[in-house]
Amino acid sequence: MSGKRILIAISTAALAISSAAFGDETTLLKQAREFVAPLPRELSAAGPPANKDIVYLGRLLFFEPRITVDGTVSCATCHQPSLYGTDARATSIGVKQRLHPRNAPTVLNAALNFVNHWRGDRESVEDQATQALTAPISSGHDEQAVADRLERIPGYGLLFKAAFPGEHSPITTKNAGMAIGAFERTLLTPSPFDAYLAGNIDALSPSARAGLQTFINTGCVACHRGAGLGGDMYRKFGVLEDYWTATRSRNVDKGRIEVTNDPADLHVFRVAGLRNVAMTPPYFHDGSVAALPDAVRIMARLQLGVALNDADTGDIVPFLASLTGGLPADFAAAPVLPPGAVPAPK
Amino acid sequence: MSGKRILIAISTAALAISSAAFGDETTLLKQAREFVAPLPRELSAAGPPANKDIVYLGRLLFFEPRITVDGTVSCATCHQPSLYGTDARATSIGVKQRLHPRNAPTVLNAALNFVNHWRGDRESVEDQATQALTAPISSGHDEQAVADRLERIPGYGLLFKAAFPGEHSPITTKNAGMAIGAFERTLLTPSPFDAYLAGNIDALSPSARAGLQTFINTGCVACHRGAGLGGDMYRKFGVLEDYWTATRSRNVDKGRIEVTNDPADLHVFRVAGLRNVAMTPPYFHDGSVAALPDAVRIMARLQLGVALNDADTGDIVPFLASLTGGLPADFAAAPVLPPGAVPAPK
Repeated sequence: MSGKRILIAISTAALAISSAAFGDETTLLKQAREFVAPLPRELSAAGPPANKDIVYLGRLLFFEPRITVDGTVSCATCHQPSLYGTDARATSIGVKQRLHPRNAPTVLNAALNFVNHWRGDRESVEDQATQALTAPISSGHDEQAVADRLERIPGYGLLFKAAFPGEHSPITTKNAGMAIGAFERTLLTPSPFDAYLAGNIDALSPSARAGLQTFINTGCVACHRGAGLGGDMYRKFGVLEDYWTATRSRNVDKGRIEVTNDPADLHVFRVAGLRNVAMTPPYFHDGSVAALPDAVRIMARLQLGVALNDADTGDIVPFLASLTGGLPADFAAAPVLPPGAVPAPK
Repeated sequence: MSGKRILIAISTAALAISSAAFGDETTLLKQAREFVAPLPRELSAAGPPANKDIVYLGRLLFFEPRITVDGTVSCATCHQPSLYGTDARATSIGVKQRLHPRNAPTVLNAALNFVNHWRGDRESVEDQATQALTAPISSGHDEQAVADRLERIPGYGLLFKAAFPGEHSPITTKNAGMAIGAFERTLLTPSPFDAYLAGNIDALSPSARAGLQTFINTGCVACHRGAGLGGDMYRKFGVLEDYWTATRSRNVDKGRIEVTNDPADLHVFRVAGLRNVAMTPPYFHDGSVAALPDAVRIMARLQLGVALNDADTGDIVPFLASLTGGLPADFAAAPVLPPGAVPAPK
């Protein structure tokens, strides 16, 4: 028997073993494909027109702290690459020690969300970035002050000209927000689960596959669906019980009702996408729960009336970990910013 | 004439042209080598014993904000990769909006300094890191609180065990500081000027070479010498005039006298190393001067009694820019930190 033939014989034997569970596995994959979808290869086309110069500029501005009032806070402050686009805090601290009211969700795959922020009051990643550039907590500057800071750093003139060639005075907060949004649209993290959805069953461990089955059977996919496994609808947090008892939240957040004034929106939030969820504790709109197994159990109980046992939770967690992708290189690596000092306060 | 011969003929002609200034150029290079030295290839041997696991752990801890009191400040907050290991502020803001008294120098090549901090009260990068981990401004935590935070993040147990294999309870502030220091010893940035010192005259532009000549002739090399072009001695800031008039400083800093109580140390500071100086405004111990040409003129006047003209300054600045090296890859790229939430305050 030649070496090649031995290898083929071994492969055939391995195939025969995995075929034992073949029927169940194809059913599970088929079921999964009904509810969830692989990550798109790109999302730029879904946003406003952008080009490479806009994306490049947006990457610089994402890491740029000098435009905020004391020059300390950039997008990367609350959305740190090392922490998978979060800051690991329950709620973030902005400029001058001002506390954000809700947890900072990751920017990774955020462009998949149908709206942004927990209450859906940001239409897109571009809208989120533009508003953050002038918000009192995250920036402390108005549009003019942001533009003034950018004007003072000599390197930005040419970068804005290259990105927005038709404009006479392209250094604006609006353009900065557009550029940051265009950069965020590139922050996609394909994961082992996408390889699974593409047909590579062994991309998930047996316990992750068992977790996927439980995730489907329990009904989690009713909301955590699509390419983001969430992020495409609103839902009341605490369908069957008040959430704040289970989460031990310090404050009761009324949710989207404060945006819409619609009584049906009481305690309603945008459903969180679950990609990279294992890397982004703490959980929920107020970061009130630190451990992923606890978050899973609370969700099943409050939203679906299911008391998950330890074995089920112990499978769902590795399934959720299969949604972790590698950091995009242009996100992990900080770009070199054009030099220039933060001006002294007047 | 074959293609090869034509190329040789052209090269010979080019050599003949550059030979016109050959005598001056070799003299300049020889002079430069008397005062300054190329960057060493490595500095790890100069520090405490370290291994790859310690350096790897140190890299994680450098980017780790969760050990400080509110979980917002890491080494990378004041020493941002995007800003060449600085924060571009006159003086940094630490935890709870506490203001550092002096400018944050870059961590790049900081291991070259004979002591650290402006007043020389940190013996080494390890000493600096260890003290920063428990300082009220940069951390707000004591040794026990830092260790407690690290213990709470499950991923760190194995990382500390691997880095300090002989120790029963290796998660300590001291070990964390050692590891961060070991990482900092790898942050070396060879620059075009090092290629020049190695004999590649064309690695510097003609104006940079003219600037080097002026830098030597003016006497800057008396203090900005060695591999760091500074960082290996103390000097009074303002030898010939009070510095605070020229720099428009808001406060008068007494300098090293507050460490030693020696009257000779009034307004004495560690001489700043000039590597990457073009990328690290603002300048001086209090970040009082934002533009590099201004800093150059002030130094020549206050320390050497020389009024540099615009042409001289215009040459020294490109010479200083030749001291800019590329960011080390392990510094530019943020590492993925083990997941874990910042605990809520008690």
